[in-house]
Amino acid sequence: MTRTLIGDLGNHVGETVAIGAVVDVARNQGKMAFFDFRDRCGTVQGVVFGKPEVLAVAKELGAEWVVSLTGVVNKRPEKTIKADVLNGDIELEITSITILSKAVDLPFDASADLNLDTLLDYRPYTLRRARERAIFKVQTEIVRAYREALTSAGFTEFQAPKIAGDDAEGGAGAFKIDYLKDKTAYLATSPQLYKQIMVGVYERVFTTGSAFRAEKHATSRHLNEIAMLDAEMGFIESQYDVMQVFTDTLRHITTHLEKTCANEFKTLNATLPLCPEAFPHMKLREAQKLISDATGEDCTNEPDLDPAHERWLCEYAKNTLNSDFIFITHYPITKRPFYAMEDPENPGFAKCFDLLFRGVEISSGNQRVHEYETLVEKMKKKGLNPESFSFYLQAFKYGIPPHGGWGMGLERLTQKYLGLENAKEASLFPRDINRIDTRLSVNTKPDEI
Amino acid sequence: MTRTLIGDLGNHVGETVAIGAVVDVARNQGKMAFFDFRDRCGTVQGVVFGKPEVLAVAKELGAEWVVSLTGVVNKRPEKTIKADVLNGDIELEITSITILSKAVDLPFDASADLNLDTLLDYRPYTLRRARERAIFKVQTEIVRAYREALTSAGFTEFQAPKIAGDDAEGGAGAFKIDYLKDKTAYLATSPQLYKQIMVGVYERVFTTGSAFRAEKHATSRHLNEIAMLDAEMGFIESQYDVMQVFTDTLRHITTHLEKTCANEFKTLNATLPLCPEAFPHMKLREAQKLISDATGEDCTNEPDLDPAHERWLCEYAKNTLNSDFIFITHYPITKRPFYAMEDPENPGFAKCFDLLFRGVEISSGNQRVHEYETLVEKMKKKGLNPESFSFYLQAFKYGIPPHGGWGMGLERLTQKYLGLENAKEASLFPRDINRIDTRLSVNTKPDEI
Repeated sequence: MTRTLIGDLGNHVGETVAIGAVVDVARNQGKMAFFDFRDRCGTVQGVVFGKPEVLAVAKELGAEWVVSLTGVVNKRPEKTIKADVLNGDIELEITSITILSKAVDLPFDASADLNLDTLLDYRPYTLRRARERAIFKVQTEIVRAYREALTSAGFTEFQAPKIAGDDAEGGAGAFKIDYLKDKTAYLATSPQLYKQIMVGVYERVFTTGSAFRAEKHATSRHLNEIAMLDAEMGFIESQYDVMQVFTDTLRHITTHLEKTCANEFKTLNATLPLCPEAFPHMKLREAQKLISDATGEDCTNEPDLDPAHERWLCEYAKNTLNSDFIFITHYPITKRPFYAMEDPENPGFAKCFDLLFRGVEISSGNQRVHEYETLVEKMKKKGLNPESFSFYLQAFKYGIPPHGGWGMGLERLTQKYLGLENAKEASLFPRDINRIDTRLSVNTKPDEI
Repeated sequence: MTRTLIGDLGNHVGETVAIGAVVDVARNQGKMAFFDFRDRCGTVQGVVFGKPEVLAVAKELGAEWVVSLTGVVNKRPEKTIKADVLNGDIELEITSITILSKAVDLPFDASADLNLDTLLDYRPYTLRRARERAIFKVQTEIVRAYREALTSAGFTEFQAPKIAGDDAEGGAGAFKIDYLKDKTAYLATSPQLYKQIMVGVYERVFTTGSAFRAEKHATSRHLNEIAMLDAEMGFIESQYDVMQVFTDTLRHITTHLEKTCANEFKTLNATLPLCPEAFPHMKLREAQKLISDATGEDCTNEPDLDPAHERWLCEYAKNTLNSDFIFITHYPITKRPFYAMEDPENPGFAKCFDLLFRGVEISSGNQRVHEYETLVEKMKKKGLNPESFSFYLQAFKYGIPPHGGWGMGLERLTQKYLGLENAKEASLFPRDINRIDTRLSVNTKPDEI
């Protein structure tokens, strides 16, 4: 018999169907057995009664066993109907069971409250929980909406390389690779240089791929391998053009999640962010003035915001400006990379922005220097050797439009959309100072919190 | 004035517009200057005459200079109209020019016939040529169609990690990384183990990301970093279920390219493949019998097909079976990885397939072993230590549906769709034994052809 998906069972009331499913919950009650079965579309209740030979097999089954089975789709008695739940009005009266795969005794119940290490030690099992399936379904839809928004805005997706030569932007934070012919190469910390090159090709480009940071942090925010959502666009007048496209993109993501992930947000007890048509923005110095006036702490000469101040600004944006997002522009040029453009109207400050979302910075961007001579000059000032960047510099020697863009980590974005405590919960297989799937050593202690 | 895209100029005949563009071709003719301008949407002819102050600026411009300009959109005289070409019936009479970026003298003309090394040495410039823009537009659309096809078929996209621990499948071909805490890690050669784990989570999954091979090949087929199109699905009966979904996916890609990339195929003088509803398939031994009968060369006991035989089978499929694709199934189990399932009906042979397309193998796949004990057994037989795979093995201990899938390199697929000579032409920034953007050494010689 052809397999019917659990999500379609409601269209087969009164019929005998075959399903393929995983046992989500097994409840054994003497002469009867009850189950929740799940497949990729949803769950359904199953029941065995009055069939001794089927019951004998049913009693063997435990959670995570995989079966194919046949059964009759019955309407449930009125009083046991669960409204607003998929298949809440039907149950499957099982007529035969074939075991496809057995599971050993589970280390803990799927609903157990787990600490982070246990959650990650048992990742192949814990990812199957409703909570984790919801998190990564949302993550999938974030990426999908990101691509949709940018594709409709005339951006072309491209594949950025992950192996970089010794022109890797900031070698210190990059992992070393033993490349061929005894050469050392590096893992890309971002697709920055390539997306700028690609502006010369397609004018508007984006890429979604992995980036790697050899940082020895052990915090709730840091991961050593992340997925990056990058974009870069030409023919801009300033960073404000970039910020508007970025805003439209995040608004599209939010609307898309509202449409596609309502159940997941419910499961995770998460709320969609306030996402006005234009996100509020202010200069760093204005933001610092606000904070200093409100808190009495003078931070008006600091080169950056500290985490508490980022949280303060997010609260302020939410309560006063009706937005869960806020752009902070014009950080000191000395704190920004060589390719950031200085603002002639605000000397000493960059045409740049950070985007804060629910308490943390989730993205940085800026208008880039597009003049070859200026770029070479700025590299030298930062102690970089322009000769190492000869490949990248071709893009500027051969003409390139004024351009800018942003980079954003997918895990932190997912974390903040869903209100998760730790960015590692938003990474399927987090790589950090203590772990590549299994722990690197038995008694690992974080070097730094 | 707001920028009008070149693709929209046809809607503004008789109006004064502003465009942002790159000079594609500049032709200076004394008192007049003619240009082809391009932006992300297309090209348009521009002309300057009767305005000495504009002509003075126009005469400075060369190919790849970037400008913003204003002009009047005029209908062309009847006899100079180019039918079937975007903006073939209009030209822009330029009224002002602002130079946004200058280009130095170009190393060669965009239409020059280049050898591969020159093409790659000047990649930031050569990618701007019509030919290269066409190749990577097609590549973008292949990936987009791949995701569309699988998403509609109930697959969930996921992010596979690229840093692997020492359980990396086949350590020999993997690049070593200096990870944190003096640990050695590896670059993933494929997302194989993770996509199997994810079958336990979402049943049907796919991923598009980078994979890395530390192979010292210098051939037209090999790259050391590739983009992989992977998929994995649960509740299958055999590899034939996987082959059908794979066929549907490639058919969708072909239809999508027909719709979105007709101009690019014309530019590249490429033809869409023959793509029947079911791709032909045959067992390795049957294929070898055919070859032996036709060529007189006895290959019927070989464990694999050699390149000439792959080409022969593709010609045969095209001429006799009306398909540019052909699946070869049932390779000897000894030549397949530990996770491949042996076919009980064909002992000694795997429930596997290779997909051949226009002369080469573009993908391998199989039904996987899903029983924990069998898998551990097979690891041991291949000399692998199951303890190193304890993380992966959890997916099997805790129950997993019968499943299978495929992996496919994006560059080789793009190459074959477009009839390119070398897979490196289908990689934006190819990494190989001689090159990471720039050449690794001045006089590099391939180790092997």
